Amino acid sequence: MPRYGPPDALETPRYAGVRTFMRVPNVRATEEVDVAVIGVPLDGAVSYRTGARFGPEAIRSASSMLRKYNPLLGVNVAERLSIVDWGDTPVVPGYTLESLDRIRATIEEVARAGIVTLCLGGDHTILLAELRALAAVHGPLALVQLDAHHDLWDEYFGQKVFHGSVVRRAVEEGLIDPARSVQAGLRGSLYGPEDAAMPAGLGIHALSSEELLAMGPGGFSMLVRQRVGAAPCFLSFDVDVVDPAFAPGTGTPEVGGPSSREALTFVRSLAGLDFRGFDCVEVSPPYDPSGVTALLAANACFEMLSLLALRRA
Amino acid sequence: MPRYGPPDALETPRYAGVRTFMRVPNVRATEEVDVAVIGVPLDGAVSYRTGARFGPEAIRSASSMLRKYNPLLGVNVAERLSIVDWGDTPVVPGYTLESLDRIRATIEEVARAGIVTLCLGGDHTILLAELRALAAVHGPLALVQLDAHHDLWDEYFGQKVFHGSVVRRAVEEGLIDPARSVQAGLRGSLYGPEDAAMPAGLGIHALSSEELLAMGPGGFSMLVRQRVGAAPCFLSFDVDVVDPAFAPGTGTPEVGGPSSREALTFVRSLAGLDFRGFDCVEVSPPYDPSGVTALLAANACFEMLSLLALRRA
Amino acid sequence: MPRYGPPDALETPRYAGVRTFMRVPNVRATEEVDVAVIGVPLDGAVSYRTGARFGPEAIRSASSMLRKYNPLLGVNVAERLSIVDWGDTPVVPGYTLESLDRIRATIEEVARAGIVTLCLGGDHTILLAELRALAAVHGPLALVQLDAHHDLWDEYFGQKVFHGSVVRRAVEEGLIDPARSVQAGLRGSLYGPEDAAMPAGLGIHALSSEELLAMGPGGFSMLVRQRVGAAPCFLSFDVDVVDPAFAPGTGTPEVGGPSSREALTFVRSLAGLDFRGFDCVEVSPPYDPSGVTALLAANACFEMLSLLALRRA
Amino acid sequence: MPRYGPPDALETPRYAGVRTFMRVPNVRATEEVDVAVIGVPLDGAVSYRTGARFGPEAIRSASSMLRKYNPLLGVNVAERLSIVDWGDTPVVPGYTLESLDRIRATIEEVARAGIVTLCLGGDHTILLAELRALAAVHGPLALVQLDAHHDLWDEYFGQKVFHGSVVRRAVEEGLIDPARSVQAGLRGSLYGPEDAAMPAGLGIHALSSEELLAMGPGGFSMLVRQRVGAAPCFLSFDVDVVDPAFAPGTGTPEVGGPSSREALTFVRSLAGLDFRGFDCVEVSPPYDPSGVTALLAANACFEMLSLLALRRA
Amino acid sequence: MPRYGPPDALETPRYAGVRTFMRVPNVRATEEVDVAVIGVPLDGAVSYRTGARFGPEAIRSASSMLRKYNPLLGVNVAERLSIVDWGDTPVVPGYTLESLDRIRATIEEVARAGIVTLCLGGDHTILLAELRALAAVHGPLALVQLDAHHDLWDEYFGQKVFHGSVVRRAVEEGLIDPARSVQAGLRGSLYGPEDAAMPAGLGIHALSSEELLAMGPGGFSMLVRQRVGAAPCFLSFDVDVVDPAFAPGTGTPEVGGPSSREALTFVRSLAGLDFRGFDCVEVSPPYDPSGVTALLAANACFEMLSLLALRRA
Amino acid sequence: MPRYGPPDALETPRYAGVRTFMRVPNVRATEEVDVAVIGVPLDGAVSYRTGARFGPEAIRSASSMLRKYNPLLGVNVAERLSIVDWGDTPVVPGYTLESLDRIRATIEEVARAGIVTLCLGGDHTILLAELRALAAVHGPLALVQLDAHHDLWDEYFGQKVFHGSVVRRAVEEGLIDPARSVQAGLRGSLYGPEDAAMPAGLGIHALSSEELLAMGPGGFSMLVRQRVGAAPCFLSFDVDVVDPAFAPGTGTPEVGGPSSREALTFVRSLAGLDFRGFDCVEVSPPYDPSGVTALLAANACFEMLSLLALRRA
Repeated sequence: MPRYGPPDALETPRYAGVRTFMRVPNVRATEEVDVAVIGVPLDGAVSYRTGARFGPEAIRSASSMLRKYNPLLGVNVAERLSIVDWGDTPVVPGYTLESLDRIRATIEEVARAGIVTLCLGGDHTILLAELRALAAVHGPLALVQLDAHHDLWDEYFGQKVFHGSVVRRAVEEGLIDPARSVQAGLRGSLYGPEDAAMPAGLGIHALSSEELLAMGPGGFSMLVRQRVGAAPCFLSFDVDVVDPAFAPGTGTPEVGGPSSREALTFVRSLAGLDFRGFDCVEVSPPYDPSGVTALLAANACFEMLSLLALRRA
Repeated sequence: MPRYGPPDALETPRYAGVRTFMRVPNVRATEEVDVAVIGVPLDGAVSYRTGARFGPEAIRSASSMLRKYNPLLGVNVAERLSIVDWGDTPVVPGYTLESLDRIRATIEEVARAGIVTLCLGGDHTILLAELRALAAVHGPLALVQLDAHHDLWDEYFGQKVFHGSVVRRAVEEGLIDPARSVQAGLRGSLYGPEDAAMPAGLGIHALSSEELLAMGPGGFSMLVRQRVGAAPCFLSFDVDVVDPAFAPGTGTPEVGGPSSREALTFVRSLAGLDFRGFDCVEVSPPYDPSGVTALLAANACFEMLSLLALRRA
Repeated sequence: MPRYGPPDALETPRYAGVRTFMRVPNVRATEEVDVAVIGVPLDGAVSYRTGARFGPEAIRSASSMLRKYNPLLGVNVAERLSIVDWGDTPVVPGYTLESLDRIRATIEEVARAGIVTLCLGGDHTILLAELRALAAVHGPLALVQLDAHHDLWDEYFGQKVFHGSVVRRAVEEGLIDPARSVQAGLRGSLYGPEDAAMPAGLGIHALSSEELLAMGPGGFSMLVRQRVGAAPCFLSFDVDVVDPAFAPGTGTPEVGGPSSREALTFVRSLAGLDFRGFDCVEVSPPYDPSGVTALLAANACFEMLSLLALRRA
Repeated sequence: MPRYGPPDALETPRYAGVRTFMRVPNVRATEEVDVAVIGVPLDGAVSYRTGARFGPEAIRSASSMLRKYNPLLGVNVAERLSIVDWGDTPVVPGYTLESLDRIRATIEEVARAGIVTLCLGGDHTILLAELRALAAVHGPLALVQLDAHHDLWDEYFGQKVFHGSVVRRAVEEGLIDPARSVQAGLRGSLYGPEDAAMPAGLGIHALSSEELLAMGPGGFSMLVRQRVGAAPCFLSFDVDVVDPAFAPGTGTPEVGGPSSREALTFVRSLAGLDFRGFDCVEVSPPYDPSGVTALLAANACFEMLSLLALRRA
Repeated sequence: MPRYGPPDALETPRYAGVRTFMRVPNVRATEEVDVAVIGVPLDGAVSYRTGARFGPEAIRSASSMLRKYNPLLGVNVAERLSIVDWGDTPVVPGYTLESLDRIRATIEEVARAGIVTLCLGGDHTILLAELRALAAVHGPLALVQLDAHHDLWDEYFGQKVFHGSVVRRAVEEGLIDPARSVQAGLRGSLYGPEDAAMPAGLGIHALSSEELLAMGPGGFSMLVRQRVGAAPCFLSFDVDVVDPAFAPGTGTPEVGGPSSREALTFVRSLAGLDFRGFDCVEVSPPYDPSGVTALLAANACFEMLSLLALRRA
Repeated sequence: MPRYGPPDALETPRYAGVRTFMRVPNVRATEEVDVAVIGVPLDGAVSYRTGARFGPEAIRSASSMLRKYNPLLGVNVAERLSIVDWGDTPVVPGYTLESLDRIRATIEEVARAGIVTLCLGGDHTILLAELRALAAVHGPLALVQLDAHHDLWDEYFGQKVFHGSVVRRAVEEGLIDPARSVQAGLRGSLYGPEDAAMPAGLGIHALSSEELLAMGPGGFSMLVRQRVGAAPCFLSFDVDVVDPAFAPGTGTPEVGGPSSREALTFVRSLAGLDFRGFDCVEVSPPYDPSGVTALLAANACFEMLSLLALRRA
């Protein structure tokens, strides 16, 4: 068995104990670790609601319900992967650029030890720090982004780094390879028709929510594989990709999206890629009175771990 | 550019400022105005939950997230339409008939100026005031109603005007042309089999929720066009048409309905009709802890504006 | 008309009066009674959230919105069935085994009078008491279980009777006939691959959530009829069978399930079986801020009554 | 022991069973009944929030926590009083005057049988119906009103009967004797200085919240006794008399009021008066997420029953 | 009558219409204006919870319940003051320093027109921008701060400007005169004993919550008057000064504080000072499920306006 | 400095990281440890609401806001005490007696190492396990109990061990010395006058809520010191001792209690006793929508640690 992993849930109830992700140990070890789950409690640089700084806490809490075996992918993540909860990166509340530097430093330290990072947001701004860290280690990544928004705007209110501009920054900085990247789930009102053209303008293949649903998981899987190939890959799951009925607790909800079931099926369809990092972002607990958003996020993370476990099999 | 419309959301965050619909000016102008968004804060004459008097506030708040361009219909509502937020009509809380008189007077005043009205309910009782006002200006209207209930009951508790009887009253008063009207989304338990026969008995074409979903947006679009033709038309969107998971904040929720995505697709399928008025009703904020209902309502209104903008193109 | 049933909702609003199920009389009569709705306010022996002891209250409250006629099944439950609200069984909070004895005694008393029982949970542990009571009267039953979990685990924390082990106990005690039983809607992470094999190992036909949705109501109906045949049958509806967006108020939610509409369609597909008992369990009101879970549960109960009314026609 | 009363809470948990007030029988008996608790599910004619139509349900639910003995007054209400839960009066939602007629008729019927009525609101408009009924039976009453508002305004929006005008109407109709009446707890912003003078202008003794607290329960008790004397008396408890921290679930909350403890002490100070009726109004459950308002209301009702039980001793 | 003010609440219900502060006009006029209410939707640079960017919206909404006359101070604010709702200042979400510049510019523009500003926070960081603006116009101010925290820490996480450091910055920049300033309501755990000594170390008179309550409004009034004298004065009301039972919707709640009634009495005790600006900060609506925090804030603002109206009398 | 304690909150925000109590290390060490904070996630054997199994999680989360220095007692808990978060004891959900055995075993293990235990409930049933463990180590204890209920009932529903009977059991088993024990804060309706006499009947000094408030912290301190003297002492803080406005999130709230400020003052008045154990119980997060209950509980625990730190000084 791997060195680090969850305890036996049949011996002590899952609701007991300090809340770490899937109840794995909260240690900052780099030896014999396959995956580090890292909280990134940043919010602020968002165009609507804050609150995502409590996302890591909420996802950890919901993740206590996760068991170890994924029946749809047929893999036991705890048998295949040594998993630790690293705790949270430092942040400087109200100071986005300073925060990104500190986040990047933590992730880069972990990634350099050969560990795959799974970051719990925090708002989507954190993606820029993640990609800076991972690209420094692995080179430019293929980005697979499930999201209602492409986050390719140029600037907001005179600033260049926001939750809605980070993917453009990543392209500009050479952190991702647009030709190998895919965005899917885009929808909602836009500032203008030029918005819809932005992904293509940068060389990224984008799928609207309607296109994604029409294509189905099979089609999506094929498309992504063709684009990504054997490149090192990063999967970013913004919970606003699903309809707000399934994820009300998020910063900029967009009605009319897929269900949780559909979204998780798209994640599972990505088995086989060479993932170097994952995140699950934009969980804003104060807007999640019934907790369904955090529960979805925890399950999305579980699917990511399952993808990695399959690859390591 | 039209005279009235929303400010630039890239210059100041959408969450800043006084909440008007889509952040358009709150003015009672009739010159150079295409659409007036009008709140109708009436509740009370409802068979279950009240609270819809705060519907206009909640929809206005949620609408601040709307951007100007509708990518699915390919139209920028702010470029094509001059939009004002008229504020709310007067009402007399606890006095339904007196309230309807005051609501009707406001709407008629606006409609006589050649302005299309988009009313934010309030409970569905307001439809009777809207139709009285608009029929006085435009003659009998074709009614397209997306709703879980046909609102054709004759009376409740000895009174003739309730949120469940207003469409029958509208037929009796000659405000709508049943032969050109369609109701869709009906479902839930009934008082008896005679209820299901009421629309047909009055000459209205009715589709149950199951029939609507089986027919799809294409079939629905064709059916409505055949019925409505070139007649002046009114679209009434009762948020209880969707499943309560998507719109819990409503007065008489009925489980088992379509999703928000499906419902909005049915709205979009109505492009081309000659709309003279719209409403979005039965948003009850105290039962909407996560705000998804108001967000759906704001988006439904955005689709209505888009339909009008397309027609005006 | 039957002796006991709901009052006329057009004469007094449905929100008025003491909350009994569908507003039927709260009496402990056995004469001229077809169905007794019985609350079972037990929680505690659950692997995650408690709160289901307030499930009966919440379902009764939501059920006041139910009208008498089911348009999809074409049956008026109040015309065909004499229905009473029996009140709640005794329970001993914190003492699971003692509670089950008291619950069983009440249900057996009612069942011996030839009355069909519809129990409002309470957590799923109550199923064992129900089956003990009904099997004592009717012999082994065919169990049709709509649920995200098979509840076939052997023990938790050293104890044999929990909400996750009751179906295994029922098989061991000969209360159900596995060869005539079906479980559907199973999903979520598991302790290991052996979990997925448990139903088959005991002779129960199990369908995962994905299989159930792929099969559709027609296929499900056929499969169940083949299994159950003319045997006396029990239908157990665990609200966690649907996605948490539709039923957040439950003890162990599992994301990625069917919608309420889909779930109710599966219930309706069971028309014709010889039901001797029903339950609707795991409604946990403190986790149901918008009330959608209780509303779904009330409607699921209404469909159950409709199935019985059809059979009695 | 009295004929009607609550069951033994040590034998079955208080949370079990259909929710009647204090779990007493829900019967419409007039023989051997001392007090009838009557729900009045009216809202609508209010200047701010609706929702009080669900007040009776919430107070009944919270009242299940009440035990029978009042240690501060030293009286067992169940030993001294035969108590029934009458259910709710009819109402016509959206039609205030028609509703008041129906409410009055029910209360008068009960009062003519010599039964003291304890009405669960509903908004304060119901007071007018109560006083019409009781004055018809008992003649003009002394009114003791604990409330943040004097409800003496003349009209709102062109109508004479609202939750803010009912006490003026009661004076005009001769239902209460102003010289024997006291209002206490008044506070909050007013339309103008003339508002503050209204009680005195009509001959009612009024105490602001600050005056009431400065006077204390002893002073209040003496003042009320001097005013009321041996006259038949009605106590009206509007939950907005306390600070919104203690009663957020109400229609027109006013910050800066007494605590629950202080308010209940003022109620208890009224022992000895000849009460013919009581009410507890303005509980609006949709604005009461933690349930404290309904709990306070249930306890205020318990103190009222205790006052009556003491008098009957 | 003043040029700008609220409409008549007896003609149209207070819940109707677009939500501006007290329903006064939303205009950016400087002629014939006494007070401008300005929203400052900034959060982020806070040591715990965000969400205060929606504070202005929530306070405006709650303020619709305010009437014009303050009975305890005996003044009608609408008769004495011309009041406008200026809307919100620009902010740059996630960028604290840039935001402060934009906030300061707006406030300075208004203040230079001789208008008193009443700012609706936003977190307490905004105080620095307010003081920079007002000190530029009026010179150093006497600060009266009702707050659980002195906000005199030097830096957090390497940054100098945070909601907990702004008063120290104001002293350093000479924006306030410490010798004329008073902080009151301080409480809660601290980083160390040196924290408690910080106000005195800078020359500010500080009162703990316990000292303030022991002193009472009379003592507080005398102390403040002695300190402030005739100096131009700024009153900052942080809603966390009250106990979280009265103001749960705030960023860094501290249990054990005064009640709303007590806090408002302390505000009223300040009549006579020469106020040039006010604010009410740290209202965080996502943590305010029952709305009591926003209601308290609206009332605190009303008391501030009353203080100004009295001074202008 | 002590070996175990919280990190520096000025370097990384308090909301960052895995939630342990006050962010101290989650270790099961017994060397160089003064206090172990131990979660006891038990609910079930309660007469009203469950949910307290999530109390430890909520208290830990709220405790992240605590700083190290207590200004009112003048002590830095982190400098004086080595504090660990032990995690949670095992429990068997739904099986009260089995759970108490496991809880007792954990606490006894810790106590035998000379460590003071501070248990986070869980419902009050856990007190019996705590006292069994501590009495085994230290002999009979003086119990100081702040609570709305004396928990001296004999049995409920045929069982002897419930949250309302544990103190009677503790007396019978000789775990506490009644002559040295004090209960304070008692209030609310009772089953009968014999209830009020129970403490005295067993030799315990009891103070009603009214008596406690009249006596004040000085009087309470003197009374407790006289009773307890130098005996080893246990302090049990049931959050329902305060009014539900301050602690709605609890199992059996009783209106009319003291404020948080008053309650904490009573805790602080106990400085000097020889505490061997503490608990804070009955925090039920699902009924605590604004989180004030957990925040009060965290602060009550901080005062307990401060009492111990003072004693160790």
